[in-house]
Amino acid sequence: MSSTDSSEHVHRRRNPLTGRHVIVSPHRTQRPWQGAQEAVDDAPLPAHDPSCYLCAGNVRANGQHNPDYRTTFAFDNDFAALQPQAAAVPAQAEGSLLQPEPLAGECRVLCFSPDHGKTLPELDPVALRAVVQAWMDQSAQVGLRRRWVQVFENKGAAMGCSNPHPHGQVWGLDSLPDEALVEDAHQRDYLAQHGEPLLVRYARDEQAAGERVVVETEHWLAVVPYWAAWPFETLLLPKAHTLRLDALKPRQADDLADAVRRLTTRYDNLFRCSFPYSMGWHGAPHEAGRADDATLKHWQLHAHFYPPLLRSATVRKFMVGFEMLGEAQRDLTPEAAAQRLRDVSDTTHYRRARA
Amino acid sequence: MSSTDSSEHVHRRRNPLTGRHVIVSPHRTQRPWQGAQEAVDDAPLPAHDPSCYLCAGNVRANGQHNPDYRTTFAFDNDFAALQPQAAAVPAQAEGSLLQPEPLAGECRVLCFSPDHGKTLPELDPVALRAVVQAWMDQSAQVGLRRRWVQVFENKGAAMGCSNPHPHGQVWGLDSLPDEALVEDAHQRDYLAQHGEPLLVRYARDEQAAGERVVVETEHWLAVVPYWAAWPFETLLLPKAHTLRLDALKPRQADDLADAVRRLTTRYDNLFRCSFPYSMGWHGAPHEAGRADDATLKHWQLHAHFYPPLLRSATVRKFMVGFEMLGEAQRDLTPEAAAQRLRDVSDTTHYRRARA
Ligand SMILES: O=P(O)(O)O[C@H]1O[C@H](CO)[C@@H](O)[C@H](O)[C@H]1O
Ligand SMILES: O=P(O)(O)O[C@H]1O[C@H](CO)[C@@H](O)[C@H](O)[C@H]1O
Repeated sequence: MSSTDSSEHVHRRRNPLTGRHVIVSPHRTQRPWQGAQEAVDDAPLPAHDPSCYLCAGNVRANGQHNPDYRTTFAFDNDFAALQPQAAAVPAQAEGSLLQPEPLAGECRVLCFSPDHGKTLPELDPVALRAVVQAWMDQSAQVGLRRRWVQVFENKGAAMGCSNPHPHGQVWGLDSLPDEALVEDAHQRDYLAQHGEPLLVRYARDEQAAGERVVVETEHWLAVVPYWAAWPFETLLLPKAHTLRLDALKPRQADDLADAVRRLTTRYDNLFRCSFPYSMGWHGAPHEAGRADDATLKHWQLHAHFYPPLLRSATVRKFMVGFEMLGEAQRDLTPEAAAQRLRDVSDTTHYRRARA
Repeated sequence: MSSTDSSEHVHRRRNPLTGRHVIVSPHRTQRPWQGAQEAVDDAPLPAHDPSCYLCAGNVRANGQHNPDYRTTFAFDNDFAALQPQAAAVPAQAEGSLLQPEPLAGECRVLCFSPDHGKTLPELDPVALRAVVQAWMDQSAQVGLRRRWVQVFENKGAAMGCSNPHPHGQVWGLDSLPDEALVEDAHQRDYLAQHGEPLLVRYARDEQAAGERVVVETEHWLAVVPYWAAWPFETLLLPKAHTLRLDALKPRQADDLADAVRRLTTRYDNLFRCSFPYSMGWHGAPHEAGRADDATLKHWQLHAHFYPPLLRSATVRKFMVGFEMLGEAQRDLTPEAAAQRLRDVSDTTHYRRARA
């Protein structure tokens, strides 16, 4: 072993939230690419599209008319993956490897704005603050009925989004999904061992180090985490210990709208395209009859942004072969990714600059 | 809860190899799709392409000429993600959440055939048997130097493959990657509790049940596993307890060529296209100085096939939003997927039928 700079040599990094690893191969950023190209998402869209089932007033798949909404609009998904009542599952023989479990839940759709053509960074401040409020309200409302509320957004055709109208989803489940369980266990262990929530400590360390910070506002921090798997993956964290979306104070919520605008503006400016991603919020479960925060205080609210693009608006990272069978691998270091995001404007969106 | 048939109602299934779950939503198979379409991979390709860096005799990125190979051909990847010597990683403060680990390894490329235009199901029996031999030999050779040998193939542009020349990869690592560690732990626990390797028991159960079987030969079984996450995911297993690729007996190896041909023929025939997937082999680690199989006998060799297509040659499943932040979700049941694969020929490839 020679002693060297980890910005140049292959090494692994551990994700303390999940226990999983990522192989970092910084020397490989010069690899040529001859594979698939993504379509560029950059066509300006009209403010209203008569054929869009999410636009105000239009008809949906189930025949209902959307209301003439002016800010956000949430409704039950017409093709929900979850059903409100759990069906009994057939009993299996003792020791069987076939173990079905009942599952109840619900799937909601959240339109961010009646404007068909504006994504998050293009919304005006009031409209973006309304999206933050809708995230909080949906989390609170669905959380009355379900233990786990997954607020998320698939953005762009590359991320399986089938309608460009700006919208996210809210799925409520009666049990914790795998990622929630894994993060719950790791955060619980960390608090027990170190006396402080994992992500509260992490945000402080990253704020001090600076090199992975992408956006910092009064109450929020967005970093390319040390263990990022996707090239421009970010983790968005409140600086104060906050259990869930519905626990945000008004000042934190106001400031979150600003942090989201800055982060998504940097994303769009990086390759001058509407940057595809899946993003979503993780926070403490909604435990009925366990309203005492003491059992949940290892949790720190956070959002993950998982964007697939690697080198340009058309060249993505594929998490395939080795990544599916072994573990995540990346070329660009998280520090270099953060630098590139800091190098573009967080205030002027490229489409506005062009106009 | 009403008592119902799990082929119609939402439920979860547990993957005993990983402990992870998949949500099955059978009622949702009728959902319309308005999102991204994949390009169809079905152009016949020439047997030799002068611009292909994998064809026999051609020049590679590093300036070397490929030999005039006649069967398989393995070489070190010119853009390897791993490096043979581990570089020392900077020491971190006690308790730091930033923990780099050194990693040494190697990446090899394995050309399946000099014929640029023939994928696995189109190779003649002798040529396909040579691919099986190359998987075994690469596993043995790289295993002399590395603890974990990951043999895999990314097939098709949808799976990040940048060159249609039929080829796979072999990565050797000095430590076990995440998926290997997870499968190691679950198989170890199962053997300790039940006195039999997990996948030996599973193959026997599936053979008896029949409903998820896609291919059965004298020595091999391919099933859509009960816990499949991808729509047409399969698990290919030897019927006899076998630790690793390089432990296959000649008769098992001969028969594996036949099982792979049948499985990949069914895949291509399903949507009449060159079916994209990532596939790869998992088996016992190559433990130096621990050649006594007793410590490894919880392992059963197997291959995972992870194909992304869902409804047609152009409509894929996206593992995004909820899947990245929560857990896997599927519409079509594994039993229905197996039935659809059984409904197409395992002997006559659609391209040959057309010719
Ligand atoms: O080495 P290749 O084939 O160019 O690259 C492909 O396979 C690798 C291993 O699964 C992945 O890390 C890359 O993202 C993918 O594009
Ligand atoms: O419900 P949508 O937006 O049509 O579907 C999209 O998001 C879902 C949740 O992440 C995924 O299960 C689907 O594969 C994806 O296409």
